[in-house]
Amino acid sequence: MRFLAVCGSLRAISSNALVLRVAAALAPLGVDIVFYNGLADLPHFNPDLDTMADDPKLPLPACELRAQVGAVDGILISSPEYAHGVPGSMKNALDWLVGSSEFPGKPVVLLNASPRSTHAQASLAETLRTMSAELVEGSPFAVPLAGKGLDEAEALAHPEIASAIQEALAALIRTVDAQRRAGMSAEL
Amino acid sequence: MRFLAVCGSLRAISSNALVLRVAAALAPLGVDIVFYNGLADLPHFNPDLDTMADDPKLPLPACELRAQVGAVDGILISSPEYAHGVPGSMKNALDWLVGSSEFPGKPVVLLNASPRSTHAQASLAETLRTMSAELVEGSPFAVPLAGKGLDEAEALAHPEIASAIQEALAALIRTVDAQRRAGMSAEL
Repeated sequence: MRFLAVCGSLRAISSNALVLRVAAALAPLGVDIVFYNGLADLPHFNPDLDTMADDPKLPLPACELRAQVGAVDGILISSPEYAHGVPGSMKNALDWLVGSSEFPGKPVVLLNASPRSTHAQASLAETLRTMSAELVEGSPFAVPLAGKGLDEAEALAHPEIASAIQEALAALIRTVDAQRRAGMSAEL
Repeated sequence: MRFLAVCGSLRAISSNALVLRVAAALAPLGVDIVFYNGLADLPHFNPDLDTMADDPKLPLPACELRAQVGAVDGILISSPEYAHGVPGSMKNALDWLVGSSEFPGKPVVLLNASPRSTHAQASLAETLRTMSAELVEGSPFAVPLAGKGLDEAEALAHPEIASAIQEALAALIRTVDAQRRAGMSAEL
């Protein structure tokens, strides 16, 4: 299995990026986590550039995002909250995926590094459901990391943090497995 | 009085831009409406570039946005909804204003050109309150424009549309007036 990790923060030192690195370190054998690094380079979404399937006007960074989504079995999103909302840059990436053929049905798990912040997670969940993502049950998974000042090794060694991330990973893997079984029985 | 009109859509032909042009046409004598044209040129918000007042790392487009906000008495926002959320590009502009000295206390009126869409308006209102905007009472004002295919002259001549926009303008003007009176009595 192959998952795409999307960090909603562009900070150089980001607790959300740390959550995703810890997830990659904890991923079981046979599960690869690749990181999406294009958030800052995406232009702002303009519906005029996305009027039909494979619109030739679609900007290259948006094509690349769609290709990366198409190449994975599931997505992990770890996003901060800005002013009780989703960071604009994070939502912009989703706006470019609304019209894609790669996104609908894709399992997505939400991780929340600041469990007291609930507005952005609720908005993300509403948007993801509207986009026909398969939102992984239990999302958002609360990862009590923000404000602790831990590095990756310390976060990995922190039982509550590691187990929350492992639970999220396990739930995403179960969702992909269930999809595959459903797909196989549909083919019989 | 001087107001800044911010359109949440980057479409060339946008019902939200039309709402704002109609508002400019309906503005009473003594009220100027200027248009913010920088949404597409703002980089994606990065907290590392905005760590203190007048951070020298602040990108020029974000400085310009703050200066334009500082130069007006109030703001009109007309924004579409994408996948039950605020367009990322619109939220990104607000993200750059969170740390500004120009924004808190600024009267802001929300106009909704697609009155059936309520998620983005609710998120915008929550974010604006969190940013200490003075959200104009009655926001969002429902302007039943989307899907009608009207041009500016037709929208101006449409009684329901024109009166909704006039009500929003009047409410914004009242809010600025009340702020000025409160400021004057505080100075006495």
